[in-house]
Amino acid sequence: MPQDKKTAEKAIEASGIVTLTTDFGLGDHYVGAVKGVIAGIAPGIRVIDISHGIPAHDVAEGAFAIAQAWRYFPPGSVHVVVIDPGVGSSRRALAAAAGGHLFVAPDNGVLSQVFEQEPNRELRAIDLRHGLAPVSRTFHGRDLFAPVAARLASGMEFAQVGPPLDDPAMLPPSAPRNGAGRVLHVDGFGNVVTSFRRGDLPTGGRVRLGNLIVSEWADTYADAPGAAPFLIAGSSGYVEVSVNRGSAASLAGVRAGAEVSAI
Amino acid sequence: MPQDKKTAEKAIEASGIVTLTTDFGLGDHYVGAVKGVIAGIAPGIRVIDISHGIPAHDVAEGAFAIAQAWRYFPPGSVHVVVIDPGVGSSRRALAAAAGGHLFVAPDNGVLSQVFEQEPNRELRAIDLRHGLAPVSRTFHGRDLFAPVAARLASGMEFAQVGPPLDDPAMLPPSAPRNGAGRVLHVDGFGNVVTSFRRGDLPTGGRVRLGNLIVSEWADTYADAPGAAPFLIAGSSGYVEVSVNRGSAASLAGVRAGAEVSAI
Amino acid sequence: MPQDKKTAEKAIEASGIVTLTTDFGLGDHYVGAVKGVIAGIAPGIRVIDISHGIPAHDVAEGAFAIAQAWRYFPPGSVHVVVIDPGVGSSRRALAAAAGGHLFVAPDNGVLSQVFEQEPNRELRAIDLRHGLAPVSRTFHGRDLFAPVAARLASGMEFAQVGPPLDDPAMLPPSAPRNGAGRVLHVDGFGNVVTSFRRGDLPTGGRVRLGNLIVSEWADTYADAPGAAPFLIAGSSGYVEVSVNRGSAASLAGVRAGAEVSAI
Repeated sequence: MPQDKKTAEKAIEASGIVTLTTDFGLGDHYVGAVKGVIAGIAPGIRVIDISHGIPAHDVAEGAFAIAQAWRYFPPGSVHVVVIDPGVGSSRRALAAAAGGHLFVAPDNGVLSQVFEQEPNRELRAIDLRHGLAPVSRTFHGRDLFAPVAARLASGMEFAQVGPPLDDPAMLPPSAPRNGAGRVLHVDGFGNVVTSFRRGDLPTGGRVRLGNLIVSEWADTYADAPGAAPFLIAGSSGYVEVSVNRGSAASLAGVRAGAEVSAI
Repeated sequence: MPQDKKTAEKAIEASGIVTLTTDFGLGDHYVGAVKGVIAGIAPGIRVIDISHGIPAHDVAEGAFAIAQAWRYFPPGSVHVVVIDPGVGSSRRALAAAAGGHLFVAPDNGVLSQVFEQEPNRELRAIDLRHGLAPVSRTFHGRDLFAPVAARLASGMEFAQVGPPLDDPAMLPPSAPRNGAGRVLHVDGFGNVVTSFRRGDLPTGGRVRLGNLIVSEWADTYADAPGAAPFLIAGSSGYVEVSVNRGSAASLAGVRAGAEVSAI
Repeated sequence: MPQDKKTAEKAIEASGIVTLTTDFGLGDHYVGAVKGVIAGIAPGIRVIDISHGIPAHDVAEGAFAIAQAWRYFPPGSVHVVVIDPGVGSSRRALAAAAGGHLFVAPDNGVLSQVFEQEPNRELRAIDLRHGLAPVSRTFHGRDLFAPVAARLASGMEFAQVGPPLDDPAMLPPSAPRNGAGRVLHVDGFGNVVTSFRRGDLPTGGRVRLGNLIVSEWADTYADAPGAAPFLIAGSSGYVEVSVNRGSAASLAGVRAGAEVSAI
């Protein structure tokens, strides 16, 4: 319904915040250059890092991170997501208005989970003329996405970004089907975030994860006994497999993308 | 003396700065979510990272980091310290006014070294109603400590946080006894920070650290000869064992918590 | 020509931004302490990290990072660069006005590549009285460079920093000679940044790098075939050796400082 789309797009008033989610790491000067460009175009904007530790080229991990974080920012924030192995090729650059927030990213599926959450979104292809002159073919984070984000955060209208786009690249759906799920993410503590939501598993439900069958449930990490893995309703809304003060991922021998089965 | 306590508490005017010290790491979206929550509640507040690289669940390392850093911030800053293996359990959430600064943290000893520095402090138990609705049982950094810090930094009175608390959890004292000290921290350069202050060791004093006996003293790192370890008055006020352009910790085979003896 | 130098120095109006480039890492409280000092002296200044992941004591890597990043910030920014194995020794502390920006750093060559880019610069030796009282002999990032940067960013005149200095420490020139270049940097993706600029190599030129001879050229990472290394005009203006979604540095068995030859 076009009317709905227009509403979604028009309702957005810039919060003055730009967030960054990338696979650039923190060892190089790349994140600094992106922030310099934003500061030069929009001096009053605040830039907040979500993570620069997404594994290199891992679009699915980037999709998870931004989907978990964006909602905690004020409406009208602009989220820059750059996991971009196809930089400089024919892949399009995407801007999206969804859930009262704005997003800019390569059109490679990295916004898939945001779009699953917010089916009512408006998409546009970013016109390269909004970038630095010239736009390099190897660093669109600095040369294209940063300038566009700075301008959107400063009040440029979303419709000015470029022409509408209706067929964004999408990753396979994240929701489990017929009891077959997968590991969406392993966090820095070793907690295994599965694609099951609490309601996807029956009371007392068990899962198979790598070489483990996990049937214990806990309400808090500290409730759980020593070294045994357990299921817990995690802070992201997904069921996690955890070990109190230990790494469930190491214990199970899994990483992101591994199968998880309800049994 | 109640009068003293009241003075300590009342004198604090918010600086508009919130600092963060956690074991969340930078690979996940967790720090981003915390900053989003703060930005949503208190748009004008500046958030400054002290470190998110505290080893997972290591309360003693967190206690060292915040004790070293807080004094360099302007009075009235609010310091959020979340190393929190007991999140969601019966452990209390703590707010403290000390030395003209404010602190929020789990009540697990992570503020011990700050309290050693500032015995005249005022403590309160944080009321969960100050958190997001609902407060999860696995991520109080985002759901409880961030909102409380944002409100304190915006001018909420300290007394509104919750009821007074007089018996905070404390780690064992950090000061050496009878010449027996310990390694408080190994920094990223491999410098070994001992619990001895300069005055705790006699002129020309020696220490035993792991498999080393160190008797040389240097005024600067560059003064010291090639690969030999030496003692130096470090930037944190403690005696450190260092190697010029090398790792004293590797050489001695020690890490945080190891014994150091004055001999 | 003194007239030129004066112009370079006088034209600079503070942007209100301080950037940080260090080898402090993010595991310790050191970066936090530096930011606390700046916030205490100059509350309105914004501090932006370029990188704290420069390898410990690696002046050449620091020289590369700041040279790549500074130009993306607004004119009048103050860039703090602290890779400082000689801290507290007789090495001087340096302030520079170049290209409309200001820089503070130890006088050990870490600004060499900036000075190669901007031969028309004005240099001064930082007077220790601008530091905290007392200035430690092990942490000038916190005690000297942070305060000076905060004051320059708040409008202190450059000439007040200290007396002029004409003989800064310089690293060997970064430009290749007679077809002999070197690896300036390996980035987090494994891309090998050589010291050759595009114009330094003939059309169809080849390079020898470690155990590889690379003759293929690509316009974008995604253009290139599977696992073969290729040459590409990188985002820093240098020719890079890359592998699509892989590490060229691992393939070639090289790291920063290795030889690269035009053949």
